[in-house]
Amino acid sequence: MIVLGSTGSIGVNTLNIARKFNLNIEALVAGTNIELLNKQIKEFNPKKVVIANQKDISRVNHSNVGFGEKDILELIENSESKTVVNALVGFLGLRPTLKAIECKKKIALANKESLVVAGKFIDQSRLSPIDSEHFGLWYLLQNKKISSMTITASGGSFRDYPLEKLSCVSVKEALNHPNWSMGNKITIDSATMTNKMFELIEAAWLFNTRKVDAIIETKSLIHAFVNFEDGSTTAHIANASMQLPIAYAILEKCNEQILKPVNLLEVGNLEFKEIETNRYPIWEIKDEVLNNLDLGLILNAANEVAVSKFLKGQIGFLDISKITLKALNKFNALKANSIEEIFEIDKEVRNYCDS
Amino acid sequence: MIVLGSTGSIGVNTLNIARKFNLNIEALVAGTNIELLNKQIKEFNPKKVVIANQKDISRVNHSNVGFGEKDILELIENSESKTVVNALVGFLGLRPTLKAIECKKKIALANKESLVVAGKFIDQSRLSPIDSEHFGLWYLLQNKKISSMTITASGGSFRDYPLEKLSCVSVKEALNHPNWSMGNKITIDSATMTNKMFELIEAAWLFNTRKVDAIIETKSLIHAFVNFEDGSTTAHIANASMQLPIAYAILEKCNEQILKPVNLLEVGNLEFKEIETNRYPIWEIKDEVLNNLDLGLILNAANEVAVSKFLKGQIGFLDISKITLKALNKFNALKANSIEEIFEIDKEVRNYCDS
Repeated sequence: MIVLGSTGSIGVNTLNIARKFNLNIEALVAGTNIELLNKQIKEFNPKKVVIANQKDISRVNHSNVGFGEKDILELIENSESKTVVNALVGFLGLRPTLKAIECKKKIALANKESLVVAGKFIDQSRLSPIDSEHFGLWYLLQNKKISSMTITASGGSFRDYPLEKLSCVSVKEALNHPNWSMGNKITIDSATMTNKMFELIEAAWLFNTRKVDAIIETKSLIHAFVNFEDGSTTAHIANASMQLPIAYAILEKCNEQILKPVNLLEVGNLEFKEIETNRYPIWEIKDEVLNNLDLGLILNAANEVAVSKFLKGQIGFLDISKITLKALNKFNALKANSIEEIFEIDKEVRNYCDS
Repeated sequence: MIVLGSTGSIGVNTLNIARKFNLNIEALVAGTNIELLNKQIKEFNPKKVVIANQKDISRVNHSNVGFGEKDILELIENSESKTVVNALVGFLGLRPTLKAIECKKKIALANKESLVVAGKFIDQSRLSPIDSEHFGLWYLLQNKKISSMTITASGGSFRDYPLEKLSCVSVKEALNHPNWSMGNKITIDSATMTNKMFELIEAAWLFNTRKVDAIIETKSLIHAFVNFEDGSTTAHIANASMQLPIAYAILEKCNEQILKPVNLLEVGNLEFKEIETNRYPIWEIKDEVLNNLDLGLILNAANEVAVSKFLKGQIGFLDISKITLKALNKFNALKANSIEEIFEIDKEVRNYCDS
């Protein structure tokens, strides 16, 4: 298979699964962590490697190294692999997803932006989501009449932070996720709850429903609930590791132990909280977004610009949602009628938010 | 259908389901609550009624009233109903279960003693358990490789009671269950944790496994967990009402709302505790019982005698488990080789415990 984003947390876990099940890695695609990439090359011996920047090529211990989006797309087109794991971060993961669909690859999709911005143009027939929540929903689905679905949120870095101090938190504090370590972008998206909004949009596309909501479960051990018409609810419980969704996304089936089971006696208790709009202002537009999934494109573009500015120290934490909500308000009538328009609208929203 | 035990909590909930789905009630069987029985007769207009004692017959507003075990068995044999709901309490529920199987009825089984004492002689092909825990397990089962199962216990009336005072609790305190109201026998069995031991034995028979355990979930909202080989756990969550398991046990399928869904935001938190042997001495023999399901017969006979003595004020609360453990120790080599021997061993153990 091909692993896009091999040095991020999803990529590393994907290679853990590849090691466990002795899977062949045809190509690795990474960003700027050349040191880890070189270790991965040594262990998995890929035929081809692609990185983000041309200037780093000489540091990569491989004879066949490309760089940038064009080389990623060519890599997918010319590959023999049946499976592409797409763990790229942000909007730039979209073209590789589209290319992989075009090439009839099986796609293990951790790049949530692909569905968030272009769900209506994505053929899902060979797509498996890599996300604890959607994996949990899929795991729970049985042939019964479903009423609604609920996914869980950790609440992010500022779940218990004094509300009045949220406007002046540091980047370092924002990157300090309570339950696990992930990339910077998704950690900030988790703190603003935008990540969970993305997951609701994904769930809407993946399970063809609009009756999906989220609550906070502080320990991130329950990932998803399915609510049935009869009044029953089922839950998926697992330790917070992406290896389980990854294993199901890339293997045909999975009956081996991937994770240590949760010991509820050690856990002791679980706590559920509402996602409050005073702490997570983005949550105000949840219903609007679920009723108009085209907003995912606007939401993502504005959020990518805003998170980038926050990480550079140019704006405060609460400005992220302000910028995003303002952009949604301005562009909420826009609807892409083709995949080309997705890229045009994305650019238009970015230009607006940049200025 | 026929409802055995119509005036108990399971019986009343069964009639709630019958009312909701407009099901025909051919016969009602009740004990001594003639007042409630007369109301049920008025509403459901059964063809036949059987009660516990001959002396109460004149008080029953029906022209066709029998009494005692012989009439219950004849009633089943001569009935046109396809379904028998067996919610009788204790060992005396066994013969009606056997008769219903013999008559090829569908059996909705709330009488847990039938499986506890005679599981190896029970044909399960037309049997549906009425018990939140086993319903939860069934609900969660999918075509995946299961590692083990866990059911939950409320912890009963003395879950948070000072340990050193357990020996002198009153009958009234023992009957004060924290989460719901049930009959006297099962409320005491819940306080001693013997009820949960019965349910483990039932689960072993129903799901053909010995890898089944129990933990305390104090709010009784999660009823069962299934633990899968991959490390996932799934949970069945529902408000604590028997109407859901009853509906599934007596209807072909069920997609209508039976219960209000659990609102986890209102619930706030869930707590898990170990079943400790100093509070629940019966739990000491859990592994022994699961490794030798024949002990269910001994356990049940001794427990029925002991609970009856406790309810009459003849022994203290902790004496219940003492008597049971002593009987198990004495008779642990006994194995019934036929259904007749079940009745013989039951009598032998009762005689021993009575003296």
